[in-house]
Amino acid sequence: MKVKVVTHILEANDRIAAENRKLFKESGVYVINLMSAPGAGKTSLIEKTIRELSGDLKIGVIEGDIAGFDDARRISNLNVPVVQINTGGACHLDANMISEVLGDLPLKELDLLIIENVGNLVCPAEFKVGENIKVMLLSIAEGDDKPLKYPLMFEESSALILNKIDLLPHTNASIEKIRKNSLSLNRKLKIFEVSCRTGEGIGKWVKWLQSLIK
Amino acid sequence: MKVKVVTHILEANDRIAAENRKLFKESGVYVINLMSAPGAGKTSLIEKTIRELSGDLKIGVIEGDIAGFDDARRISNLNVPVVQINTGGACHLDANMISEVLGDLPLKELDLLIIENVGNLVCPAEFKVGENIKVMLLSIAEGDDKPLKYPLMFEESSALILNKIDLLPHTNASIEKIRKNSLSLNRKLKIFEVSCRTGEGIGKWVKWLQSLIK
Repeated sequence: MKVKVVTHILEANDRIAAENRKLFKESGVYVINLMSAPGAGKTSLIEKTIRELSGDLKIGVIEGDIAGFDDARRISNLNVPVVQINTGGACHLDANMISEVLGDLPLKELDLLIIENVGNLVCPAEFKVGENIKVMLLSIAEGDDKPLKYPLMFEESSALILNKIDLLPHTNASIEKIRKNSLSLNRKLKIFEVSCRTGEGIGKWVKWLQSLIK
Repeated sequence: MKVKVVTHILEANDRIAAENRKLFKESGVYVINLMSAPGAGKTSLIEKTIRELSGDLKIGVIEGDIAGFDDARRISNLNVPVVQINTGGACHLDANMISEVLGDLPLKELDLLIIENVGNLVCPAEFKVGENIKVMLLSIAEGDDKPLKYPLMFEESSALILNKIDLLPHTNASIEKIRKNSLSLNRKLKIFEVSCRTGEGIGKWVKWLQSLIK
C-alpha cells in the first residue's frame, strides 16, 4: 500500500518535472540538480563554481532546505539570483516545489541554474525536478562504503564530486574503493576529486561543466 | 494531499511502534534508535559500545540499510546477535520493519538492543520504532550548521554524539555553535564529544548509557 502511494506521487512528479524541463529548454538555461548527504559541501561547491564561472556564465541558484536561510544568504553575497525553498519537513525537493519558484528567477537571462537539494543521500535521487543532469557530492569524511549502501544516487548521477580530499590523510577511507564501487554501479559516472576548502581540483570540475553548457 | 498520506502512514506506524514498545518492556530490553546522516559513524559507535559493555550487558543489534550487509558483518564479528534489514529503497526504518525481525532476536536474554537506522538526517526522526530513546550522531566534518537546517532529529533525540572530533583541527566547524544551536532546539539534549577512531570520549557516553539501563 505504501508503495502504491509512492508510485502515484512519482507519476505526478514526473509530469511536472517534464513541464519544468520544457520551460528550462525554451529559456536556454542548463540545469543541475545537486545532491549529497548533509554537510558534504554542496553550498561550498556552488560558491566556488560561481567564483570561477561568473565572468563567463550567468548563474542562478535555488537552495533547498528543510528550514533556515543560511545557504541562500551565502549565495546572495556573490550577487547572483537565488531563491530559498524551505520544505518544512520534506526530505527532498520535488518538481512542484521547483515549479512554484521559477517565476522568481530571471530564467531567460541565465545560462546555468544550480538547484541545491536537501542534504540526504536517499530520497532526492528519486525525484526529478526538470534538470539536465544530476550531480552528487560525497565527502571523503563519510567513509568509503557509501556507494553500495546508497546505490540509487550513484546510479542516477552524471558526476560524482569527492569533496574534502584534504581530510584524506586523517581518515581510513580509500578513494580507490569509492571509485571502483561507484563505477560498478554506473560505469559512465564522471568522478572529480576536489577540496572546496583548499580549491584543489575545482578547475577540472568547472572545465567539465563549461563543456556541457557551451 | 501528500501530507494526508503521510499522516495516515504515521498513524499506522505509531500503533505498531506501541506494540513493539510493549514487547520490549515485557522482555526487559532497553532499546535505542540510533540515527545520523550517512557516514557519521553509527556502526563504529556501536562497535565501540559493544566492546566497552559486553562484559556487563547482553547487547543485540538491528542494522538498517537501503542495501548491503557490511554493517551486520562488522557487528557479527563481535559475537553479538545481529539482524540486517534491507529497506530496498526506503530512507528510514519504520515500526513494521522492526516488528518483522524481532522473532529473529533472543529478546528476553538481552539488556540492550541498538537499532541502527538508515543514514539520513531527516526521515528517521519522524518514525518511532518502539524505542526507549533516540540517540543521534553528528560528524564534526559535516559542519556546524546542521542543527538549524535539520531541526527535527535534534528535537527528538535524548543524546547527541559529536563524532570525529579528532578532525576538528582540520575543519572550520565550531563545537560551541553546534552546542548552542542544538540546545536552543532541545534544552534537555545530552551532548557527548567523541572520536570512534581514537576512542576519546567513549567512556563518558558508555557510562551515561549504563546509568539509563540499570
